[in-house]
Amino acid sequence: MRIPVMEVFGPTIQGEGMVMGQKTMFVRTAGCDYSCSWCDSKFTWDGTGKSVSKQPADIIEELKAIGGQAFSHVTISGGNPALHKGIAELVALCHENGWKVGVETQGSIWQDWMPAINDITISPKPPSSGMKTDFSKLDFFMDKLAGANASLKVVIFDEEDFKYAEDLHLRYPAVPFFLQTGNSDTATTDDAGLTAALLERYEWLIEQAVRSTIMNNAKVLPQLHTLVWGNKRGV
Amino acid sequence: MRIPVMEVFGPTIQGEGMVMGQKTMFVRTAGCDYSCSWCDSKFTWDGTGKSVSKQPADIIEELKAIGGQAFSHVTISGGNPALHKGIAELVALCHENGWKVGVETQGSIWQDWMPAINDITISPKPPSSGMKTDFSKLDFFMDKLAGANASLKVVIFDEEDFKYAEDLHLRYPAVPFFLQTGNSDTATTDDAGLTAALLERYEWLIEQAVRSTIMNNAKVLPQLHTLVWGNKRGV
Ligand code: SF4
Ligand code: SF4
Repeated sequence: MRIPVMEVFGPTIQGEGMVMGQKTMFVRTAGCDYSCSWCDSKFTWDGTGKSVSKQPADIIEELKAIGGQAFSHVTISGGNPALHKGIAELVALCHENGWKVGVETQGSIWQDWMPAINDITISPKPPSSGMKTDFSKLDFFMDKLAGANASLKVVIFDEEDFKYAEDLHLRYPAVPFFLQTGNSDTATTDDAGLTAALLERYEWLIEQAVRSTIMNNAKVLPQLHTLVWGNKRGV
Repeated sequence: MRIPVMEVFGPTIQGEGMVMGQKTMFVRTAGCDYSCSWCDSKFTWDGTGKSVSKQPADIIEELKAIGGQAFSHVTISGGNPALHKGIAELVALCHENGWKVGVETQGSIWQDWMPAINDITISPKPPSSGMKTDFSKLDFFMDKLAGANASLKVVIFDEEDFKYAEDLHLRYPAVPFFLQTGNSDTATTDDAGLTAALLERYEWLIEQAVRSTIMNNAKVLPQLHTLVWGNKRGV
């Protein structure tokens, strides 16, 4: 089954979350059922980017053509990859090639291929996004992923977001929990200015986490790729 | 048994390696059997810093006094913590309190408390350090830690270091492997300049790793605390 693909690139490193630093290829799928105010991948769903509908086997060939022998991990990102049933086949083919697969999704749409993902990040969106979490769906998700290598990650812009993250962590205490700084300027090309602003926000987030007894076992992380490459795409 | 302690601080985040971002307290021990050219903790062994000999139970009280209820993880760093037998008791007391314990050591001195550490990073030193790895000792280490939650981490300054890291990763292929940028200016107080230089070195290191088929499953990471706080101590 075909998958709408925005871009295939790499190898590079995973700049976020549970496998931060991991060398990986990226397959970015098109479309999202959300429309977060601060989305850093709006081009996947707002009509400004072009996707191409591809067969999983062709994506595998493209990964090999671009990455050669220099990778063993593939990250499927979006948009929301959970929109696409065809990913089941892509994941199976990656595994046949001996590659591990990572996915990030907000936890709004379930797909039966999810428990097979080697590292799956569920990233519910806090109030600043303008989205509302459907907790009955999320409960279903976390229940289905109980045996998987799953983590929760929340992007934090303000104190209300942090409070949301605390409640979420208390709701699923057994799930590895990641706090991540948001990027509030996804358009700027002033990389040095962006780096300084992001590190300041990261320091602020560390302070919040340090103070919160609820966050004792959380990991607090920036986005490494934004620190290194700013808002540039495909790196 | 007493332990010579340089500083106790936190909570803050672990800025390096296998539990990057983890909220943690730090206990920094004095003394090192190495003298790496670029050591960023020279004050622990070159006579410029003062240590106080402390009983493990007193260190526990100090951790509670400083960290209150706001932590569940303690990192024992150095210097080389493996110099101190007394850490066995400190680790046991941390575990009694429900805290996890992380340790980093270069793999030159074995202690029987090591397999009990919740996350142990073995960080052999590459050629640029001026130190020589005793591989028979390291083989013994990695063998003893086979069942533990251990990782290897190498700080990389140049291409020769990278080659050393490739050989090391090939020697212990089953052990999670981390590449880390070095800080070549451990004295500067120009934080913005340091950040820019470190991110440039990080980008260089990513490029090396991306090209190397040996590093397909490595994680490539910066030092987060240096990006945020520069060379400031105790944060
Ligand atoms: S869920 Fe992710 S991709 Fe979708 S709008 Fe929000 S940030 Fe963008
Ligand atoms: S082993 Fe670590 S503490 Fe010891 S001299 Fe080298 S860098 Fe410094």
